[in-house]
Amino acid sequence: MVKVRPVRGMRDILPEEMIQRQKVLDTLREVFETFGFLPLETPALERWELLSAKGAGGPEVLEETYRFKDRAGRPVGLRYDLTVPLARVVASNPTLPLPFKRYQISRVWRYGDVAKGRLREFWQADVDVVGSVSMLADAEVLACAITAFKRLGFKDFTVRLNHRKILSALIRYSGVEESKILDAYRAIDKLDKVGLTGVEKELLMRGVSSESAKKILDLIGLSGKADSVLAEAEDLLSEDAEGIEGIEDLRNLITYLKDLVAEPKLKVDLSLARGLDYYTGPIFEFSGAENIGSLAGGGRYDKLIGLISGRDVPATGISLGVERIIEVMREKGMLAVEKSKVKVFVAKTSDEVIGATLNLVAMLREKGIPAEFDLRERSLKKQLEYADSREIDYVLIVGKRELERNSVKLRDMRNRVEKDVRIDDLTSILENLF
Amino acid sequence: MVKVRPVRGMRDILPEEMIQRQKVLDTLREVFETFGFLPLETPALERWELLSAKGAGGPEVLEETYRFKDRAGRPVGLRYDLTVPLARVVASNPTLPLPFKRYQISRVWRYGDVAKGRLREFWQADVDVVGSVSMLADAEVLACAITAFKRLGFKDFTVRLNHRKILSALIRYSGVEESKILDAYRAIDKLDKVGLTGVEKELLMRGVSSESAKKILDLIGLSGKADSVLAEAEDLLSEDAEGIEGIEDLRNLITYLKDLVAEPKLKVDLSLARGLDYYTGPIFEFSGAENIGSLAGGGRYDKLIGLISGRDVPATGISLGVERIIEVMREKGMLAVEKSKVKVFVAKTSDEVIGATLNLVAMLREKGIPAEFDLRERSLKKQLEYADSREIDYVLIVGKRELERNSVKLRDMRNRVEKDVRIDDLTSILENLF
Repeated sequence: MVKVRPVRGMRDILPEEMIQRQKVLDTLREVFETFGFLPLETPALERWELLSAKGAGGPEVLEETYRFKDRAGRPVGLRYDLTVPLARVVASNPTLPLPFKRYQISRVWRYGDVAKGRLREFWQADVDVVGSVSMLADAEVLACAITAFKRLGFKDFTVRLNHRKILSALIRYSGVEESKILDAYRAIDKLDKVGLTGVEKELLMRGVSSESAKKILDLIGLSGKADSVLAEAEDLLSEDAEGIEGIEDLRNLITYLKDLVAEPKLKVDLSLARGLDYYTGPIFEFSGAENIGSLAGGGRYDKLIGLISGRDVPATGISLGVERIIEVMREKGMLAVEKSKVKVFVAKTSDEVIGATLNLVAMLREKGIPAEFDLRERSLKKQLEYADSREIDYVLIVGKRELERNSVKLRDMRNRVEKDVRIDDLTSILENLF
Repeated sequence: MVKVRPVRGMRDILPEEMIQRQKVLDTLREVFETFGFLPLETPALERWELLSAKGAGGPEVLEETYRFKDRAGRPVGLRYDLTVPLARVVASNPTLPLPFKRYQISRVWRYGDVAKGRLREFWQADVDVVGSVSMLADAEVLACAITAFKRLGFKDFTVRLNHRKILSALIRYSGVEESKILDAYRAIDKLDKVGLTGVEKELLMRGVSSESAKKILDLIGLSGKADSVLAEAEDLLSEDAEGIEGIEDLRNLITYLKDLVAEPKLKVDLSLARGLDYYTGPIFEFSGAENIGSLAGGGRYDKLIGLISGRDVPATGISLGVERIIEVMREKGMLAVEKSKVKVFVAKTSDEVIGATLNLVAMLREKGIPAEFDLRERSLKKQLEYADSREIDYVLIVGKRELERNSVKLRDMRNRVEKDVRIDDLTSILENLF
């Protein structure tokens, strides 16, 4: 005997949950396509050289990346996101028409802390615009994500916005040297997990002076209505050209976004840092009400493609966390429970009528009516119990005598009534019932 | 700069191909669900202990399996099929109602010979029935696969059938000892790749006597119409109870199958062996016309679940090779080319009308009309060229003067004609055009 559990931190998705999951993914796909995003798929494995490139995911995520050598000894890893692979695809297809709007709904792997409920295999649903420096592109990916959440039935969620250029200006303003800015991002990114004192410790550990650390914590406390936060930031950073650029970007982004979706709930939150190294511009995160954590996150990464191909191509995108979304929807009862799509079970009363039973099943399926029959040589009683347990609403009972009259019994499982139906009339009668 | 190619043997699927691919996968899913199969998903990684269990895939496939230790030092591997994971799921969910009919469309990995055009990451679309010893279950998975191929537009394909019990009886009949039977399967499975003399060499290498090897080659040459091949086999194996069981199974299977799908093209081919160790009963393979190779394959594996859980549960299933199916369909022009689903491009004539442009896009999308706009601050001419290159049929041109009259220009890109349209009438006019 063999250990039957899945690999630690990974899980099976059984049918009942898969049916719900497919509805969610179908909805996402439909919204993404309505926005003109095109589908892309990339391999699960990428060269380690790519995953670990300077300016890609960065050391925090690499620590959680599955890494090994393939059978020829080449170092490879399971991808930790869908953004770095997209950058590689753009880099390796220089004739790709730009802007390139792509979506990808696929799995990624991170060797995170299972004890904290983190999965090591999970799905991301990403939309990205490659090839545009305009804030229109950032507005487009955000509008798409907002529409997706609304279409899924989410009513109460907020988009938190920040900008790496504002953040770096604030860090500079706090007296931190340029070379430590990435370190400061990584420390600030831990805020949700370790709190303010934790971030302070992280900053000190990474060589930021105590005075600067305190100043940073103070500044990133600014949060709230976009207009007022940006105005305050503008006052502070009026000397910092990059910071002002960031503020201008966010203002444009917000204007566009308000034209592109009805009443988005936006908030500028200067403590938002995002964990990956590659962001260079606006960064965003979706959070739901009632402390359900981050449902989606992303931002602009104008340097990532260039560092792979040598040719800078601007890009921006967002990643929706499929597991988190489904978890919240299940908890809130936003997903119907459906046992299967089967509408009709065709039951045989004896082995003599197997042929006729199979013919009937074939006829129904041919008409697009999902149908099943007994695969286990069970009694009629057991067949009816099975149909009941699967919540199949109608059963056709195939009997020898009825067959001679070219008919079968149609049983309504909810009302527990039966009637004889001519086989010729069957599909039209059934189609009327559904 | 970083190497931009994907990992050797793996590939990106760019949008044009992905759109075709999604259509194929959607069709498969629809057919599978019409047959009452339920969706399942399992992790990419499995414990090495499971993948390498005696009676699972066997040594040939293990040689091609990506294997490594996770960060805690546990040996794991990327799954080489979807059957062994299914067996694990059944073993670890003893309360799962049986028969369990599941489908799974997902990727698997094998470190095969790239030089021979083999991919190291590919998708399989599997349907399996777990929990039935009846040939009705085998007929069901075959009927489902046949229907799927027909629905995809395949007209000319044959289902080759054999049975591990017939094959083992033939091998015994040739004077090979019981302990070498698995070895003989593995040798015979190479027939397509290495030919008859190659199989003979393999058999000798694996310790089969020259006389026995010749006899095996002779016997497995039997192939053709089911009735006559089975009758010949019956004559030869009349003393072998297991062999006779296999013949009876195939006869039942064929009878059921003919009741379940119209005119299946069936052939009994005693040289069909299948490469994986876990098969115990009927085995099958789909081949198309014109030497396109195997499109699908599978069989019954009544011992696999038991060897994992200690409790035998019979099972049978088939795996459709997604890459091969798509390759053939593309070659034969069975797949339409579609650049995107976008119906309307909304072009702005100046920056003054950006807000109105975005509002229009939002309105169209709200009505479910896939729409795009310019993300790159391009001239009207460039915007029209872009819409043309994307094969978008209609462009709305937003001008300041038209806006004042509450209208926009609607341009038909195929006929290159324009007319003014009132914004209030827009969606109803567009909906009539599609």
